[in-house]
Amino acid sequence: MLEDFTPPTRRQLLTMIGKAGGAAALYQAMTVLGHAKDSQFNGPPKLSGAKPGASVLVLGAGLAGMLAAYELTKAGYKVQILEFQGRAGGRNYTVRGGDTINEIGSKQEVTFAPGNYLNPGPWRIPYHHRTVLHYCKELGVQLEPFLQINHNALIHGKKAFGGKPQPYRDLMVDWKGHVSELLGKSLNAGALDTTVTAEDKARLLEAMRAWGVLDKDMKYTKSDKVGEQRGWERPPGGGVNGAPIPNDPFSLSETLDSGIWNTLGFYAEHVMQTTMFQPKGGMDHIGKGFQAKVGKLIRFNTRVSKIAQDDRGVTASWTDTKTGQTGESHADWMVCTIPAPVLNQIDFQVSPAKKAAIRALPYGNSVKIGLEMKRRFWETDYAIYGGISFTDQAISLISYPSAGCFTDGPAVLLGAYPFGAGAYMLAGMTPEKRIQAALDQGSVFHPAEYKAEFRSGASVAWNRMPWILGCCAAWTEESRAAHYQDLVSMEGRIVLAGEHCSYYGCWQEGALLSSIDAITRLHQRASAA
Amino acid sequence: MLEDFTPPTRRQLLTMIGKAGGAAALYQAMTVLGHAKDSQFNGPPKLSGAKPGASVLVLGAGLAGMLAAYELTKAGYKVQILEFQGRAGGRNYTVRGGDTINEIGSKQEVTFAPGNYLNPGPWRIPYHHRTVLHYCKELGVQLEPFLQINHNALIHGKKAFGGKPQPYRDLMVDWKGHVSELLGKSLNAGALDTTVTAEDKARLLEAMRAWGVLDKDMKYTKSDKVGEQRGWERPPGGGVNGAPIPNDPFSLSETLDSGIWNTLGFYAEHVMQTTMFQPKGGMDHIGKGFQAKVGKLIRFNTRVSKIAQDDRGVTASWTDTKTGQTGESHADWMVCTIPAPVLNQIDFQVSPAKKAAIRALPYGNSVKIGLEMKRRFWETDYAIYGGISFTDQAISLISYPSAGCFTDGPAVLLGAYPFGAGAYMLAGMTPEKRIQAALDQGSVFHPAEYKAEFRSGASVAWNRMPWILGCCAAWTEESRAAHYQDLVSMEGRIVLAGEHCSYYGCWQEGALLSSIDAITRLHQRASAA
Repeated sequence: MLEDFTPPTRRQLLTMIGKAGGAAALYQAMTVLGHAKDSQFNGPPKLSGAKPGASVLVLGAGLAGMLAAYELTKAGYKVQILEFQGRAGGRNYTVRGGDTINEIGSKQEVTFAPGNYLNPGPWRIPYHHRTVLHYCKELGVQLEPFLQINHNALIHGKKAFGGKPQPYRDLMVDWKGHVSELLGKSLNAGALDTTVTAEDKARLLEAMRAWGVLDKDMKYTKSDKVGEQRGWERPPGGGVNGAPIPNDPFSLSETLDSGIWNTLGFYAEHVMQTTMFQPKGGMDHIGKGFQAKVGKLIRFNTRVSKIAQDDRGVTASWTDTKTGQTGESHADWMVCTIPAPVLNQIDFQVSPAKKAAIRALPYGNSVKIGLEMKRRFWETDYAIYGGISFTDQAISLISYPSAGCFTDGPAVLLGAYPFGAGAYMLAGMTPEKRIQAALDQGSVFHPAEYKAEFRSGASVAWNRMPWILGCCAAWTEESRAAHYQDLVSMEGRIVLAGEHCSYYGCWQEGALLSSIDAITRLHQRASAA
Repeated sequence: MLEDFTPPTRRQLLTMIGKAGGAAALYQAMTVLGHAKDSQFNGPPKLSGAKPGASVLVLGAGLAGMLAAYELTKAGYKVQILEFQGRAGGRNYTVRGGDTINEIGSKQEVTFAPGNYLNPGPWRIPYHHRTVLHYCKELGVQLEPFLQINHNALIHGKKAFGGKPQPYRDLMVDWKGHVSELLGKSLNAGALDTTVTAEDKARLLEAMRAWGVLDKDMKYTKSDKVGEQRGWERPPGGGVNGAPIPNDPFSLSETLDSGIWNTLGFYAEHVMQTTMFQPKGGMDHIGKGFQAKVGKLIRFNTRVSKIAQDDRGVTASWTDTKTGQTGESHADWMVCTIPAPVLNQIDFQVSPAKKAAIRALPYGNSVKIGLEMKRRFWETDYAIYGGISFTDQAISLISYPSAGCFTDGPAVLLGAYPFGAGAYMLAGMTPEKRIQAALDQGSVFHPAEYKAEFRSGASVAWNRMPWILGCCAAWTEESRAAHYQDLVSMEGRIVLAGEHCSYYGCWQEGALLSSIDAITRLHQRASAA
């Protein structure tokens, strides 16, 4: 009886489809249902039945390495991890007061107040990075919203508005106003009559008027309606003087000066879209979560100098950087997550093609600078809560903390986060000079407060971190086409993993997905061997 | 010596300017510094020195009434509040399991699980509603982010895509793609050569290419670059099958079918812009915060039937709705926050002009429906965390909870929030039928889960709440021009306050700003009397 039909849950439905048609039908159905569209993650790897005594050596205790160790252990493998640093997590890294940052050529003692921190590596998690989100849940890592788009944050260009920053909101509204006016004018002039149907032309004109907040003459100009988006000369209030007064939009030329379409494009990137999250208290809670599972398998302070394999197994030769002791670790199989710039310097017994891939893989550089301020003046004095202010100076942006809004006491804002030229410029400075540059440049946004409220700073220049010598993989289309498959192929008993072995370079999601793929192939080969 | 110059903080600078030039210069300077631009709030009212024994009767214990009582008490007035309901807060209202919703003609017992709630009235606070934010801080109300823009939430139109909802993200990216292509084409055809300078034309073309993610022929078409914004047929992954596969954008006509520009316009509204907040655990924590300060001044269950004034004071005649007792309350002055539809039915001794204003003030209607689901399937099965899915059905939208993401157990989503026709349609139904309609209509977004996971529901139809008979003031331009100043003017010993007495109708900010304005004028008159 149809009345008694209870609609199946998605899970029930997918199970039914899976049983009827197998994995391909399942993936197809999930895509149609809108389920899997955003992620290749298909649940944690279901590995089991490792051959008795089979062992895996994992190089690197970052997220890729620890995920491999965690899941391979579950599958029955005997696992050991060798880690260069005295700390697990790799780029999943949070610095707090009392920590020391060791770069090549400098050492910083961090003096942030208790509870304050800087995430020098990853700092935000998009909604569709389902692998990261899955393991956060499995490992008990608490997440909170990361405040990404803030309409009241600022955009600064050295050549725009005489160097005076403007709210994202104003520029975003003016942008669509001017674009609408111009497209409306073109449509009304018949310039697109051979391109769009008469029906679509009418709908487009209606849409331009609404979206661009154009007046009856299809002009973008000062009005209360524009004020309702752009904000006001005098905002709405209560009682006798409640009426708002609109202000003047920027001209087309001024709006173009701002380059606002770059910011609009930034926020439109799939990996930058809201909703985003961050772990409460610091990104390293993910690494700590994995470490709680596999920490006892890690040999710290272990510099690998040579990696060999033969028919029977793999061998890593190492030196203990604390004691000077040397040794070898053996296993049946290996997952190597050592970053390419470091791996390139190791005697590594793989094919010329894989060596070429490791050598060719470009790494981008980046610098993050944390500035601890005595108080949250961006909130109290500017009504800026979280989000990002962009600039075309070397620092590239400043970002306001997503957590702790409305609290008193010192707080850390991200004072610089450049890639490319700006990153090399700041990386070339001493830590003290970097802080000074960040304060100088960031002052354009908050001139009266930025230096006056500064308390302490800390920075990480990734190309000066000895265990990675760069920030993350920056494949070009050409290098990817020439080398990617050689890099990720399993050769003999060795497979590589890490964000550089994924199409999600520079994201934790890439490291985890790559690791899942690598250990799935390793397990297949080990099972067949 | 210039080297010793410490830049003044904003506060120091403003104090210096204020001392030198007075309040007008101060407001001017604050505006120039970007400080006051977003809000008329200038700090809480600095009232002091009430005449000994001076008293104020406040009608209504909503936010406007309680703010008035709180600040007037601080200034030295003797204050009493009369409240119709057995509860303070007015539309600042949260319903939880165990609560009863009393509408005209129906009664609902709410059965939400502990911790779950619905905010039938206000539910979000924009960053620039500084009056609300100020009192949250002063009253100890903890705030957390309200997740407003979710790129993965859905847009549904009965006539678009055969009724299949599409992610906001896809439509937003396709919108700018098609707009860019069309404007690029117009520019390249010379259609705007007499409108824009050659320099701006070149910049616009560059901007269209970047913002619209156009190809080398200035076409918006499937590509990896478009996928990087729009998402993928197969998303990026790790290892050997990591390469993503882009999908096909929607055509211009399809994109127009969606009416996506309306959603883009919605998120561009000043009052809808991020960053937004909500009180942890329910909006009524603001009302409770005020109540903690002035609760002992409130006489509950008190229906006012007549309001009179003479040279010596004001009198409110009332009936206790629990006991039937009648009585009169007297004071020197009055702040009346009774909503216009109810005030219109009371014998109110004011001028014909003010009566006409009260009568003429239109109130909008709205309905909110909370649907408690057994689990957060929108998160686990759809990767939707907070935000809003829109539809052109009567329910207008559904919204996913901002708090508690990633937790297990039942959660409440907002299953309907229409104004206008949809609100009257739902308000005309029994509470049970409303829930059924919300489940039927909301199922377009989550067909497999929506009814299967439903646990319990609750709704509030504001035009059926006996103490307000509507949702909030909906001034038209004409009614505002004809009546607003008559409504807010202080007449004799009586002044009105509430969101209806502001240019922020339907927002708590309007209620508070209106109240500050009203009591400031009352205090001026009382001091001069």
